[in-house]
Amino acid sequence: MHALTLNLMVQHLSRLDVSFAALSDPTRRGVLEQLGRSDASITELADRFHMTLTGMKKHVGVLEQAGFVTTQKVGRVRTCKLGLRRLEEEAAWIETYRQLWATRFDALDHVVAALIRKEEMDE
Amino acid sequence: MHALTLNLMVQHLSRLDVSFAALSDPTRRGVLEQLGRSDASITELADRFHMTLTGMKKHVGVLEQAGFVTTQKVGRVRTCKLGLRRLEEEAAWIETYRQLWATRFDALDHVVAALIRKEEMDE
Repeated sequence: MHALTLNLMVQHLSRLDVSFAALSDPTRRGVLEQLGRSDASITELADRFHMTLTGMKKHVGVLEQAGFVTTQKVGRVRTCKLGLRRLEEEAAWIETYRQLWATRFDALDHVVAALIRKEEMDE
Repeated sequence: MHALTLNLMVQHLSRLDVSFAALSDPTRRGVLEQLGRSDASITELADRFHMTLTGMKKHVGVLEQAGFVTTQKVGRVRTCKLGLRRLEEEAAWIETYRQLWATRFDALDHVVAALIRKEEMDE
């Protein structure tokens, strides 16, 4: 395989690692849903999810690293908003898998149907 | 909120925790893609992904717990195949998020367009 292609694949893979790991926590998914409705400060998010400021900062850091959130500090307030990554790669991976899955189980359906027909003919 | 609804939501959330965590590893995603093509034994998967049997067993265990893989031992060979979960909930969560995201950025586009129009009229 061409070195550049391999390199891109590895980069792509590790980006999915980071993003799926970011999505594996209910608070972080909740924060994304919340920011989908309106921007919010770390303090507002901490209040809303019944969490310490330190805990919320950590979650926001994980989301920021995955590119899902950007933050901006004005004075003492750090405002969080949705980042530019819109889960397209994650959706694409899941879609590819679902198609594989469907093909695989369709094939199984055909085998089962053939077995049933054979049984009926043998009777 | 009704206790049952809340309970279902929490169950649903923790299932997404488990499944997104399972997907956050390149080997585990690779195993799912591989099993989408054909069933395979733990030994075959370990060979294919250049991994020890113990390492592969651990990965398969994580996928099994998420419901993505089922295994069956016949004699000394444990065969892995795709489980019945087809990432529908994961796809649905991602789709909901993408819609929120699109709405949010569309709204921003309108604000920017309005500002540009205002500027043009002020000139």
